[in-house]
This record gives sequence, C-alpha cells and structure tokens, in this order.
Amino acid sequence: MVELLKKRIITDGQIIGNDIVKVDSFINHQVDPVLLREIALEIKKRFAQDKITKVLTIEASGIAIAAFVAYELGVPFVFAKKYNAKNLDKSVYESEVFSFTKQTTYSIRVATNYINENDNVLVVDDFLAKGGAINGLIDIVNQAGAKVAGCAIVIEKSFQGGGDEFRAKGYKIESLARVKSIENGTIEFL
Amino acid sequence: MVELLKKRIITDGQIIGNDIVKVDSFINHQVDPVLLREIALEIKKRFAQDKITKVLTIEASGIAIAAFVAYELGVPFVFAKKYNAKNLDKSVYESEVFSFTKQTTYSIRVATNYINENDNVLVVDDFLAKGGAINGLIDIVNQAGAKVAGCAIVIEKSFQGGGDEFRAKGYKIESLARVKSIENGTIEFL
Repeated sequence: MVELLKKRIITDGQIIGNDIVKVDSFINHQVDPVLLREIALEIKKRFAQDKITKVLTIEASGIAIAAFVAYELGVPFVFAKKYNAKNLDKSVYESEVFSFTKQTTYSIRVATNYINENDNVLVVDDFLAKGGAINGLIDIVNQAGAKVAGCAIVIEKSFQGGGDEFRAKGYKIESLARVKSIENGTIEFL
Repeated sequence: MVELLKKRIITDGQIIGNDIVKVDSFINHQVDPVLLREIALEIKKRFAQDKITKVLTIEASGIAIAAFVAYELGVPFVFAKKYNAKNLDKSVYESEVFSFTKQTTYSIRVATNYINENDNVLVVDDFLAKGGAINGLIDIVNQAGAKVAGCAIVIEKSFQGGGDEFRAKGYKIESLARVKSIENGTIEFL
C-alpha cells in the first residue's frame, strides 16, 4: 500500500520549490476515496493493538482520512474547527497553531463534550511538516485529560523535522510516506 | 435508514429557537462514521441510475459525507474551499455564498482542473436551508460546463424554502430527513 501511495505522489503530486509537494488532485482538494480507504486500512493495521476510542483531526483536509480511519476502527471521529465558528458550544478546548506554509497563526477548537479523560485518541492528518497542527491537536487531547495513542499521517516531510521531534518525546508517529527531500523537482522517500 | 436518521436527530439533535437543530454530536463536529456510511448507501440508491462522474461538496462538514458517497459510487469527490486558501491553483471557478445562519458572505472556489464539461456532478451537503451553499456549488458546476445530476442532502429544513426553490427549477433534490417545523423544542418531519 505504501509503495502505491509513494508512486501516486511521484506521478500525481506537484512539486513546488524545494519544500512543497501538492497533492490537490487526489488528497487535498479532489480526493480519491479508494486510495483513502486503502490508507485507512494501513493505519488500522498499525494501530490495531492500541484500543483507540476516538479519532481526532483538523478541518478541512484531515476530515476524509479521519472518516475512513474511524469507520475502520469502529469509533467516532472529531474534527477540530479552525477560525471562530459560530454555533460551536461555548465550552471548548482551544489551542493555537502556527502554519509555516501560510505564515499565520490560527486557533483550533473542540467542544469539551467530545473528548474526555477515558478516551485514547488517535490523531490523524494529511501532512506532518514542522508539526504545528499535530502539536495543537495533542494539546487539546491533553487539555481533555485523555491519552494520545499516537498520530497517523499520510505524508510526512521528514526534512522539516516535526515527526522526529514528536518521536523523541515518545509519541508513536506512523507516517505512510516519509519524504526525505525535494530537490530539483525530484522527491525522495526515506 | 431514513427513520433511523430521524430518530437520531430527535434523540441527539439540539434544538435552538425555532429554526436551528444542531447535530454536532454525530454529523457536524463529532461524527458517527457508521451512520454516515448508511447515509451514503441511501444516497447511492437514489442516484444509482444517474451515471454520476463526480461528487462535489463544500468544506468542512460536507466532506465526510461526500467521502463515503464518492466511495460507494466509485468516483472522486471535490470539496470547494472557503476563504482565500493559499496554495490553491490560480485557475479557479469562484462563487459567492450568503450564509443566513452566520449572516456573512464568503467565497467558495474549485480549481478548474477538477470539474469539466464531461462531468455529471452530484452535489452533496449536510444541510439545506435557504440554499446559499448549494446555489454556489451549482453555479460552479455551471461555470465548468458540467451537468448537475442533482443534490443529496442529509437534513433539509423545508420550512426555509431552499429545497423547493431548486425543485421548482427542475433539479433533483434528495433530502434524507426533511424538517417541516421546529416549534417549542419539538421537531416535526415531512
């Protein structure tokens, strides 16, 4: 499955400079649900022994992945909301995320109703680069007094260091495709 | 399936005033993927003869529904992006949406690469009230020269009239739960 994903990234990904690979044609904007379900089955395999009770992701591009993963694990998922969404419960966990890609800080929120101290949470996202979003999601799990079972990522840009920082802190980080480098229009995987 | 959904809305939905039913605990923020897959199977049934080539939705709460629907139909899905997302292709279809709930106008965008004149598009969303979001999505399909096969909606607030406006224009609108009224904390379905 992982080889299939890497091939797809090479074939359909769009490289911009030395640090961006766009996967807008099959993951991030247009989405191939068959590929996503394959990704979910692989993630399920890697966390099969971890007694996950909930999947947590962040809008928008994490949602479809989290949906298939949660379905396969037989648990609900929650997506953290960006921006100041109205109609959200007043009682929320909140964290700040700095996006290196967009060079902005935004806040993410999860209503306190949906994660509690009995939860063992699998954090899911499409990309892991410096780790800003994952850091915010882990912060929210901690605020809830829940346990972080680990993080499942579709594409890790290993050269940006976020993944290894979390591993050094003892988190189980499972990234399906780990990008070692993007140079002269060529992408290399670990 | 539809009766199951209606029961779930009555049990777990949260009524606010006479026009809002919040489904944050199972559709909109925390999500029950088993229910969503059941919803997708029902939508598939209703559009089985329509030769859909693509599913189109809008971030964020439409994404999980669209993912399961697209998987069941065996086609890709595209989610329109709100706000001024960076990294989006410069060549986009764009439409304006007025949200009555939030009393704001926002723009939605789809890269021109992902819908074309050969597509027969199923528009999917969680709610249909006045029809602002659906109107924007239909506009984008029209800009692409593609065909609107119809719209699949989880919850239609029929008393706000959007659904019947589209039906009067000849669109096939399939809403699984149609809310006739919300009064004194009680929700009634058509």
